[in-house]
Amino acid sequence: MEGKLKKFGFEVNEKIKKAPPSYSIKGVVSFLNENTNEDDRRLSISLGLGDPSRFKCFRTTAIAEDAVIEAIRSAKFNSYAPTGGIFPARKAIAEYLSNDLHYQLSPEDIYVTVGCKHAMEVTVKVLARPEANILLPRPGYRNYENFANLHHLEFRFFDLLPERGWEVDLNAVEATADENTIAMVIINPGNPCGSVYSYEHLSKIAETARKLGILVVADEVYGHIVFGSKPFVPMGVFGSTVPVLTLGSISKRWMVPGWRLGWLATSDPTGLLRKCGIADSIKNVLGPAPLSPTFIQAAVPEILQKTTEEFFSKTIDILRAASALCYDKLKEIPCITCPQKAEGSMFVLVKLNLSLLEDIEA
Amino acid sequence: MEGKLKKFGFEVNEKIKKAPPSYSIKGVVSFLNENTNEDDRRLSISLGLGDPSRFKCFRTTAIAEDAVIEAIRSAKFNSYAPTGGIFPARKAIAEYLSNDLHYQLSPEDIYVTVGCKHAMEVTVKVLARPEANILLPRPGYRNYENFANLHHLEFRFFDLLPERGWEVDLNAVEATADENTIAMVIINPGNPCGSVYSYEHLSKIAETARKLGILVVADEVYGHIVFGSKPFVPMGVFGSTVPVLTLGSISKRWMVPGWRLGWLATSDPTGLLRKCGIADSIKNVLGPAPLSPTFIQAAVPEILQKTTEEFFSKTIDILRAASALCYDKLKEIPCITCPQKAEGSMFVLVKLNLSLLEDIEA
Ligand SMILES: Cc1ncc(COP(=O)(O)O)c(C=O)c1O
Ligand SMILES: Cc1ncc(COP(=O)(O)O)c(C=O)c1O
Repeated sequence: MEGKLKKFGFEVNEKIKKAPPSYSIKGVVSFLNENTNEDDRRLSISLGLGDPSRFKCFRTTAIAEDAVIEAIRSAKFNSYAPTGGIFPARKAIAEYLSNDLHYQLSPEDIYVTVGCKHAMEVTVKVLARPEANILLPRPGYRNYENFANLHHLEFRFFDLLPERGWEVDLNAVEATADENTIAMVIINPGNPCGSVYSYEHLSKIAETARKLGILVVADEVYGHIVFGSKPFVPMGVFGSTVPVLTLGSISKRWMVPGWRLGWLATSDPTGLLRKCGIADSIKNVLGPAPLSPTFIQAAVPEILQKTTEEFFSKTIDILRAASALCYDKLKEIPCITCPQKAEGSMFVLVKLNLSLLEDIEA
Repeated sequence: MEGKLKKFGFEVNEKIKKAPPSYSIKGVVSFLNENTNEDDRRLSISLGLGDPSRFKCFRTTAIAEDAVIEAIRSAKFNSYAPTGGIFPARKAIAEYLSNDLHYQLSPEDIYVTVGCKHAMEVTVKVLARPEANILLPRPGYRNYENFANLHHLEFRFFDLLPERGWEVDLNAVEATADENTIAMVIINPGNPCGSVYSYEHLSKIAETARKLGILVVADEVYGHIVFGSKPFVPMGVFGSTVPVLTLGSISKRWMVPGWRLGWLATSDPTGLLRKCGIADSIKNVLGPAPLSPTFIQAAVPEILQKTTEEFFSKTIDILRAASALCYDKLKEIPCITCPQKAEGSMFVLVKLNLSLLEDIEA
C-alpha cells in the first residue's frame, strides 16, 4: 500500500495546489495573533473582524429568529429546495429590492444563494470564459480575486480615489478595459473603504460601463448600511443604462452572517441579459451547487417584510457613533492618516506612515 | 449595447455549456409529469421521490427541531463558522461515527459539509487530477457522474449483481481498474438498489481495493437505515485494510434533507491519508465553498446524541412494511420483476419487461 501512496493523489491535484493562496483580512489577523508576543500584556482591540454578530450590541431582531423558528416548527420546510430557491423567498427578495427601484424585479430575476459570497462565486463562474477579463476595485474585497483565480477568469484592477471619497477612477476603468472585458465590480457601500456612492457617481459608472459594453456587478451586501449624508442608491436604478447583477444577503443588515442566506439578482429591465440566456447559465452553475437550507429560505419573507425601522436605525446609530469616534481618535495617532470618515458599511480605511514606526521593514 | 451582447458571455461559457447534462431521477420524474396526458384521470403514485420529508409519516424528531431552535435563541451561533465546521459539531460527528468502529475518529477527521451531496463534490474535487479515474457502481447515484464530469475526473463503471443482492462484481472492479485508478465508490445501504452489504462482502471490497492500491469512498448517507436481516456495517471498519472516505448527512436518518448538514470523514486509522496531506487538500477545496449555517452545526451534538431509539425504529418499521408491500404487489404486475426485496435505504430497483408493454419503443 505504502508504495502506492502517490496514487491517492492528494498531493497531486495540481489545480488545487497551484491556485494562488487565498488572502483575506481574517487570514492576516490570525497571522498577527499567532505572532504577537504573549508576554506583552497591553490590551489589543481587534479591528479586523468583519462580523458584527460577534459583538453583543449587534444582536439580530427577534423577528428574524421567530421567522426561522416558525418555519422549523411547521415541519413544512424539511425538503430539498428547488435550484434558485423556493418561490416565496424569491418573490420576497424581488419585492425587497424593487422598493428602491422604479421598476419591478420578478421572482425569476432572483436566485437564492448560500450567502453573498456564494453569489459572488456564481457570478464569477457565469462570467468566466477563456480570454475574458473582469475589472475589480482596488482597494477591494479579496474574495473576488480568489474566485477569479479559482475559475480562471482574468482580472484587472482600477483604483478608487481616496481624495474623492473613494470614488471609482473612471478614466482608469476606460484605460484598463479592452474588448475582452465583460464586467466591472463595484462594492457600495464599500468594503474596505467605508464609502457610499452618490446617485451622480453611480450614474457616471453606468454611463462608462455602457460605453464600454460591459456589465456592472454591484456588491450591495452592505446595502442600506449608511450613516453619513448620502442615502443608499442601488446600482439597479441604472439598469436601463447598463445591465446590473446585484449581489446581497441578510448577513450584514440583519447581522447574521452565520445564517448563509444571500441572493443574486438580474437587475435587467431592458431584458438584455435574459436575451443572452443568462438564466440558463445561472441555473447550470447553481444546479450542482450547495443550497441554502429550505427553512431559512422560508423565513425570508417575514424577515424582509416585518423587520422594524427601529431595529435598523439602532444599528445605524451605533455605527455612526463608532465611525465618528474612530475618525477622531485616529487623528491623535501620528503614524495613521484617515483620508475619509466612514459613511457606510462597517469599515474604515487608513494609511500607515511606516517611516514613523520603529523596527518595521516595509 | 445590443451589438456588444456577445461580450456578456452568458452563452459562451463553453465549460458550462459543454458539460454533459445532469441526469437525476428527479429530472426524469419531472419530464414524465410534464408529458403525461392531463385528461387521464387515473390515480398515479410518485415512486421517484427520494425525499422522505414530503410524507407526513416521516416527520423528524422534536429533539432535532428543539436543538436548532435553541441554537438560534442563544444568539451565539450567528457568526461565520470556520472552514471544516465548528469544533463541537466535528467532535460530535466523530463520536457518532466511532460508535460503530473499533477505533476512534478525531474531530480533525471530520469536515462539515452542506449535505452529503456537497461532501460528494468535495471528494471528487480532492481526487480529480489529469489522467486519474474513479470507479462508480452501476446502477448508482447519478450525481457522482455529474460531479466527475464537472471537475474533469474520468469515471468508469463496475456492475452490481442483482442475483447476488446487488453486491459489487469484484472481478469487474479488478478488470476495470488500471494504474490511474485512485478510488472506488460504494453506496451502502444502496441507492437505488435497496441493498445492504454484509460484513464479509465489505471485507472483500476492502481487500480488492487494497490489492489495487485504491481508496474506498463510502457513501453512507443511508447509514443505519436497514430493515432486513443484515445489520449496517460502515466501511470504516476496514479502514486499516484500506483508507476510507466516509460520506454522510442527517438528511435521511433524520428526514431533513432541506437542512443541508452533512460530513466527509477520513476513516484512516493507519494515517495513510494524513501522510499524503489530504487534510490540506480538503481544506483548500472547502475554503472558498459555501458553509452550513452555524446554528445548524451547533445543533449537531444534540441531534446525534439525544435522538431516541424509538424515533429511529418507527421509521425503520414503516420502511420495512413499505418494502414488503412493494415486493408483494410488484409480483402481481407481469411486466415488472424485482430481483431483490429492499433491505435498506429507501429504494427498490425493478426491471421492466418492455416486450410486455404496448406502444413503447425501447
Ligand atoms: C464586500 C463583501 N461582499 C461579500 C461578502 C460576503 O457576505 P456573506 O456573508 O453574505 O457571504 C462580504 C463579507 O464580509 C463583503 O464584505
Ligand atoms: C446515494 C446518495 N448520496 C448522497 C445523497 C445526497 O444527500 P444529501 O441530501 O445529504 O445531500 C443522496 C440523496 O438522495 C443519495 O441518494
